[in-house]
Amino acid sequence: MKLRISGKVYDFEQGVTLNEVIKKLKLDSSAILVAKVNGVLVDLYTKLNSDADVEFFTFSDEIGKKVFWHSSAHLLAYAVKEIYKDVQLGIGPAIDEGFYYDFYGLKIDDNGLKKIEDKMYELAAKSLGFDRQEISVEEAKKMFSSEKFKLELLDEISSPSIYKTGAFVDLCKGPHIPSTSMIRAIKLLRISGAYWKGDSKREVMTRIYGISFPSKKELEVYLKDLREREKHDHKLVGKELDLFMMSDLMPGTPIFLPDGAIVYNQLLNFARELDVQHGYHEVITPFIAKSLFWEISGHLEKYKKNMFRVTPFEKEEEEYVLKPMNCPFHILIFKSETRSYKDLPYRISEFGIVHRYELEGTLDGLLRTRVLQQNDAHVFVSEDQIEEECSDMIDMVSTVYKTFNLQAVFALATRPPERIGSDELWDKAESALKNVLEKRGIEYKLKEGDGAFYGPKIDVYVKDYAGRFDPTYAASTIQLDFNLPLRFDVKYIGKDNAEHTPIMIHRAIMGSIGRFMGILLSNTAGELPIWLAPTQVVILPISDKYSDYAARILKSFAGKGIRAKIDSNSTLERRIRAAQMKKIPYMVIVGEKEVEKGKISVRLRSGETVHDVDMKEFETSVLKDIEERNFTASFHNQ
Amino acid sequence: MKLRISGKVYDFEQGVTLNEVIKKLKLDSSAILVAKVNGVLVDLYTKLNSDADVEFFTFSDEIGKKVFWHSSAHLLAYAVKEIYKDVQLGIGPAIDEGFYYDFYGLKIDDNGLKKIEDKMYELAAKSLGFDRQEISVEEAKKMFSSEKFKLELLDEISSPSIYKTGAFVDLCKGPHIPSTSMIRAIKLLRISGAYWKGDSKREVMTRIYGISFPSKKELEVYLKDLREREKHDHKLVGKELDLFMMSDLMPGTPIFLPDGAIVYNQLLNFARELDVQHGYHEVITPFIAKSLFWEISGHLEKYKKNMFRVTPFEKEEEEYVLKPMNCPFHILIFKSETRSYKDLPYRISEFGIVHRYELEGTLDGLLRTRVLQQNDAHVFVSEDQIEEECSDMIDMVSTVYKTFNLQAVFALATRPPERIGSDELWDKAESALKNVLEKRGIEYKLKEGDGAFYGPKIDVYVKDYAGRFDPTYAASTIQLDFNLPLRFDVKYIGKDNAEHTPIMIHRAIMGSIGRFMGILLSNTAGELPIWLAPTQVVILPISDKYSDYAARILKSFAGKGIRAKIDSNSTLERRIRAAQMKKIPYMVIVGEKEVEKGKISVRLRSGETVHDVDMKEFETSVLKDIEERNFTASFHNQ
Repeated sequence: MKLRISGKVYDFEQGVTLNEVIKKLKLDSSAILVAKVNGVLVDLYTKLNSDADVEFFTFSDEIGKKVFWHSSAHLLAYAVKEIYKDVQLGIGPAIDEGFYYDFYGLKIDDNGLKKIEDKMYELAAKSLGFDRQEISVEEAKKMFSSEKFKLELLDEISSPSIYKTGAFVDLCKGPHIPSTSMIRAIKLLRISGAYWKGDSKREVMTRIYGISFPSKKELEVYLKDLREREKHDHKLVGKELDLFMMSDLMPGTPIFLPDGAIVYNQLLNFARELDVQHGYHEVITPFIAKSLFWEISGHLEKYKKNMFRVTPFEKEEEEYVLKPMNCPFHILIFKSETRSYKDLPYRISEFGIVHRYELEGTLDGLLRTRVLQQNDAHVFVSEDQIEEECSDMIDMVSTVYKTFNLQAVFALATRPPERIGSDELWDKAESALKNVLEKRGIEYKLKEGDGAFYGPKIDVYVKDYAGRFDPTYAASTIQLDFNLPLRFDVKYIGKDNAEHTPIMIHRAIMGSIGRFMGILLSNTAGELPIWLAPTQVVILPISDKYSDYAARILKSFAGKGIRAKIDSNSTLERRIRAAQMKKIPYMVIVGEKEVEKGKISVRLRSGETVHDVDMKEFETSVLKDIEERNFTASFHNQ
Repeated sequence: MKLRISGKVYDFEQGVTLNEVIKKLKLDSSAILVAKVNGVLVDLYTKLNSDADVEFFTFSDEIGKKVFWHSSAHLLAYAVKEIYKDVQLGIGPAIDEGFYYDFYGLKIDDNGLKKIEDKMYELAAKSLGFDRQEISVEEAKKMFSSEKFKLELLDEISSPSIYKTGAFVDLCKGPHIPSTSMIRAIKLLRISGAYWKGDSKREVMTRIYGISFPSKKELEVYLKDLREREKHDHKLVGKELDLFMMSDLMPGTPIFLPDGAIVYNQLLNFARELDVQHGYHEVITPFIAKSLFWEISGHLEKYKKNMFRVTPFEKEEEEYVLKPMNCPFHILIFKSETRSYKDLPYRISEFGIVHRYELEGTLDGLLRTRVLQQNDAHVFVSEDQIEEECSDMIDMVSTVYKTFNLQAVFALATRPPERIGSDELWDKAESALKNVLEKRGIEYKLKEGDGAFYGPKIDVYVKDYAGRFDPTYAASTIQLDFNLPLRFDVKYIGKDNAEHTPIMIHRAIMGSIGRFMGILLSNTAGELPIWLAPTQVVILPISDKYSDYAARILKSFAGKGIRAKIDSNSTLERRIRAAQMKKIPYMVIVGEKEVEKGKISVRLRSGETVHDVDMKEFETSVLKDIEERNFTASFHNQ
């Protein structure tokens, strides 16, 4: 009998088990978890009776991991059943990260997870196998007569199999790992409620999530990474800091709470100032326009699946579109007057709020929404102005990334096979964009053929908190467009007194304000620079005796436009913890010493406390950071 | 035969004419234009043959005016036919202000209107009558055989009448005034194109608009008033100052051009600052939410005809609503945490952009739109906080009206017959609102029974440029609402540790930003206070020799955030006129003298020029006005 393993062919006798093969070939039996025989996943004690292709999997393979975690789920259920006898079993699959098991009737106290985890370790150490048995539906029903959820599952299975691990039996297709002893590191992560079969009319199960590894070391690394990820999860940060909320009644369109609106508006003001500095003319254009307008623009032809139709409820024959982009309006504005070469580059900017239909499953907090307030602009240029204008845009990108301490990854996308515009124009445009990047010594990814049909573009991505390139973090874009000006018959009068078609540059420096805020919350883990912090200073009087002094300090801050407040509820320790949770840049602590000396104590976000601080000096430092929009606080760093 | 005239009954012989009656009763024959006999409007030479009720009308009656203007339209057509023999006649009715007549084949030069006007005066002086004759359709068709439009009209008339005035005959139902000599003042106002029968597939007629009066004096008053109205027409001002534009492709949703967006954003910033000063928490809520949300809120039941349905083009089964109001979102935010009496009043503000479907015919520039960015807020209060909170809102109203030099008209609307809430609560709420107004000595209109079913309200209107109360100028509103908190089950924990339902106050201080801008453009005739002016200073170098000096001045202004620019095209005179047209607050004129002395000359909007001005002093004064948002310029007023 011939077995093909890792490209080689070996001779084995019929009836050999996979475990025996592993032993014979001196493969690492402590690492191999499961195998595929002719593409079918099986337990390692499976006997082979004819020629076959064999593949082995360890924990470093995705398949091995899933089997490992599924076996861990059995171990979890075993442990729960040992402790909570009357619990009914649901199901327990592996998931992307770890596994869960659903239980019915499980009442668990604060120590419950720890107790279960301990039991799992205890059982794992017994080196138990996962023994498969194929049985009839009747036998299975008898066996699971006290498990109503298993009985329900059995109604849909024609040839059930069960797995035994010590005293535990589960209805399961398998396969499993050879022994519980391979599960050397376990962490039960959390409990949540879940409807049986995901049906909101059915029983609410108690779902326990866990993760497991072949070694303690791997678990440690995982937990550390998990903590980092949670710290940088913009949705968790947003919740912790009360910045925004979502509702099922309005998917993909966040509600910015008071503190979130402060951050949002600060970002918007910053972008607006930058636009003014760079000679942009801000405009405000409508949200809805008749469908005809979007036929002319071509959006209804090319972009319909992302667009929303708008009709008056009681005048359905009138059809409008909720704008997915601002460009056609800006073209209308450019065309509203006769423009000459002296008007170019003509820069129109708008914090236009656009809506785009995205599938509900793809939505992700502020990072992927159905509403975007873009940091949008359209610049009309002549061919020979492309390079200088794009260079100015890259200046803006640099300013923004520096301000927020972000690392950029640049990508240049060039002509695709299907395109409009002459090769000469594409040559000119592409080399202009290349020049802009190369003259500054900016490294970039070249994405050949990845440009839009209407022109080449530069996309800018932000590296994530760990310095990783993350394609979901696209922030800025600079796109040349040869098409729309033609489509709308846009002209300007050149030096030669003849009509010319300008080139249009679509540009979004901060992308969309909401998404940029999401990126920032993630990268900073909520430790926003002081100019963005909703509360910039919290004043903590040590006791009520110092509330007058605290009030005077508050008044001084408020008079200077510093967003400060007093917290005098609960113990000092709790108030400090609350301020830490909210990532408030400074705590000003005042007690007897401070009142006596007429000074303040300042506790930094780092945990360090600076005593005997002069109020004026502190205010000056804070105001400087706010005005200059410094990313790093200058107080006590000077 | 008995005639009842002005309540008295007179005896007359059968066959007497109305003119004879006027003579006999010594009524003012120079003023009476036309009469109604038993409710039917007739010429004064009409004979009476039986008992009747008779009413006479002069130019001071709406009916008299219309007949006067209709007769003037005949005079216009007569004059045109005298000068342009080959022209074909359309129709010539009286309108709300004056009259028009449509002509086909009329080519008119610059002096044309004047020539026609002169001819009208000449014909009017001949004291011609308007003689009625009833004829058959065949006779009429013969008579108008060369007038194709009249022939077309005759196809729809069974018993035609004609009126002869001198050599002019028109097909007309009448009646008319006794003599052309009564038309003593005539002004032809403008020419426009108009489709025959308003049908875009038919001939384009030349329509001449005019107005006429029984005296020169009345015409003078009218023309003066017309000029004032045009000066204060916010749509004309918006066009002249390039502030906004409208498009048929997006009815009711204005496009704010660069200069308009500056004004708009300044107004918005002002409102935002005021909200912050008064303790409001700004939030940002979605534009679209699922229909279910609007069912819960009750809007789909009560407000549907003003609402827009939103559906993804390619997922029609998903139904959303484009928000017509922000309130339900703010309730969601209030409800997102447990609130206690310590949190009240809880003030949520939003510059929420809402859409409301209004019929196209009712739209009016910025004053009546389909999109509103409201200066919106919702305040949650306990019953005993109503008065103080509303008082604070009236403070805000006062600040706003003072800032913009507007006169307010207050109206208090009280309980309607159908309402929710106990009489006790209504008593409390109404007397709170009354107290707020009366304690300040504010006069108000009492609109009994005009409150909403959910609570009483104070509406504030702005007087127009002439100090007239104009109900289309509603600007601010303060509305108590007992209903929505119940509907959404909103609660707060009281001092008694029990749950209570708060009262909600809807409030919009500046109404909507766009509409407020419209009111302001109208009231100021575009002469905006300097902090709102898109261009605050224009620098006019007398010749190119002084452009360096001008550039230095510009740099100084720009460095201080003053919106300035240099205009160096064309003659000084033309540039001054251009700056006047744009209502730019200051022109800084620089020439030899200014350069020599290191000073500037400043020309004010009034036309006055101040010489030897120190640049620093001027800047200081301008900056002061900008910072303090002064309505009246302090420069040269000190």
